[in-house]
Amino acid sequence: MKICVVGCGAVGSIFAAHLAKAGEAEVYALDIAREHIEAIKRHGLRISGAAEFTVPLKASTNVADLPRCDFGVVATKSIHTKLAIQNAAPLFSDGAAVCSVQNGVGNEEIIAEHVGHVIRGTTFPAGHIIGPGHVGYDIQGDTWIGPFEPSAAPMDRVRTLANLLTRAGMNTIALEDARGAQWTKLIFNASTNPVGALTLLHHGAATRFAPTGQLFDDLISEGMAVARALGISLHGDPRQLVQKGAAAPGKHKASMLQDVIARRQTEVDFMNGAIVKWGEKTGVPTPLNKAMWALIKGLEHSWIDP
Amino acid sequence: MKICVVGCGAVGSIFAAHLAKAGEAEVYALDIAREHIEAIKRHGLRISGAAEFTVPLKASTNVADLPRCDFGVVATKSIHTKLAIQNAAPLFSDGAAVCSVQNGVGNEEIIAEHVGHVIRGTTFPAGHIIGPGHVGYDIQGDTWIGPFEPSAAPMDRVRTLANLLTRAGMNTIALEDARGAQWTKLIFNASTNPVGALTLLHHGAATRFAPTGQLFDDLISEGMAVARALGISLHGDPRQLVQKGAAAPGKHKASMLQDVIARRQTEVDFMNGAIVKWGEKTGVPTPLNKAMWALIKGLEHSWIDP
Repeated sequence: MKICVVGCGAVGSIFAAHLAKAGEAEVYALDIAREHIEAIKRHGLRISGAAEFTVPLKASTNVADLPRCDFGVVATKSIHTKLAIQNAAPLFSDGAAVCSVQNGVGNEEIIAEHVGHVIRGTTFPAGHIIGPGHVGYDIQGDTWIGPFEPSAAPMDRVRTLANLLTRAGMNTIALEDARGAQWTKLIFNASTNPVGALTLLHHGAATRFAPTGQLFDDLISEGMAVARALGISLHGDPRQLVQKGAAAPGKHKASMLQDVIARRQTEVDFMNGAIVKWGEKTGVPTPLNKAMWALIKGLEHSWIDP
Repeated sequence: MKICVVGCGAVGSIFAAHLAKAGEAEVYALDIAREHIEAIKRHGLRISGAAEFTVPLKASTNVADLPRCDFGVVATKSIHTKLAIQNAAPLFSDGAAVCSVQNGVGNEEIIAEHVGHVIRGTTFPAGHIIGPGHVGYDIQGDTWIGPFEPSAAPMDRVRTLANLLTRAGMNTIALEDARGAQWTKLIFNASTNPVGALTLLHHGAATRFAPTGQLFDDLISEGMAVARALGISLHGDPRQLVQKGAAAPGKHKASMLQDVIARRQTEVDFMNGAIVKWGEKTGVPTPLNKAMWALIKGLEHSWIDP
């Protein structure tokens, strides 16, 4: 069995390293970050933090170097999904099943334009790049996957991938309908990410400070109303994820705040933008999510119109 | 006739300088900015830009140096109104009429706790401090004043002050009900200020960029609904102020953006906070103004909980 991880940032590297270490499948990693890939080719991929190991991994910046695969795992930032899957599609042309483990919603739709079988996925592990070939594994967590309806992978392929990942140490639950877990994380992200990015508050401070804590709540209420209108049963309460994150030690900055500090385009279109879009389709008002989307787009715009 | 300008920043200095130059009244300036006041005492107050002159002015940082006055003009940032008028109150103990020309709403309520007759005011001229004793006069404009109901100055006092200011070159309109002009500027400020401060966009860019331009509109709609519920007839359309500002040359940064860049506490409580408060009192929902308020408060909080 062959599997290719597309997008080998922090989360993609954690998946690829665990799969490679388990040794059950031939594992490949594809990314455009030349330094990172060259370091992996020369010294292997090193993981630090919640797990500590270094593992050899077949990695490349060039899709032509890689074979056709049975499975794909897409782990790019959602703003790069389109280019990444356009480029990687030939690897998955023999009926492979390709699974997104990305933030937000809307990635599977893009993947489905280029590959035959798509798996919806949501993952909770988090990390950060320490340097070329070296990734910090900050937070362990489960992954939830299921068929993506319009071009669904058969359920036995979903289970095969879930079992492979679980045996590799990345606990993964296969579900007929994985939208609940995806929307729970989406609603959590669409509250904590823009508020953190706009106020510069780390997650704990923004949760404890009454005005922003209330804004988290109000944003979550809008997102939950859209999920209800879509008939999605959430996988737990997004507010518990907020509290759980705030109780963690350290001063974790939301990924969107990290993007803003680095002046990288954010994933807001796939977070608040997606909630607004689905709100419009279902007739649920989402004025606060729209305002967060407008402010983040405006902040990105200020980098080119200062 | 004696008149004291309390708060001698850009706007206060423009008022004090014009009154002193006209020579009709004895004019005094009170401020805690020692360097600015010392420079005025030594070299007079210099105005550049829309008018060019230097004028001698009796100025002090100490209320004990100044005589009792017939009129007061309060021009501090609204967050400093309380301390400033507590300190200056003895100057106005003989039934003086004290007029706010500050941003937002809520200043007159604070002034009324300390002086007998209060005049509501809204002013459109704008400027910036160039250096000690030297103020840039950026934008000319009218001032609208009227009795502040709960402890109203008699209308003839309002007219006397308006005529005095107008003859001094600061065109001022006396009205029985000056709430319309005040709320028009409030609603304008409560849209453009927080959006500028959160996105870092200058006024023209934020107006022209579709997502933030739409957010201006949505915030203005909420503010106009509250004004309607209060029975206030706006003095023109806040949206025209937005367009007029965007058409001006240069890249004007909203004052709240200037505050955020300098890490000074903002006037958001007197802008979006006031709209939320009056919305609650009149039963008009103001979720977007509340969200802007929460984000600006959060941003201020990040400076002490980074």
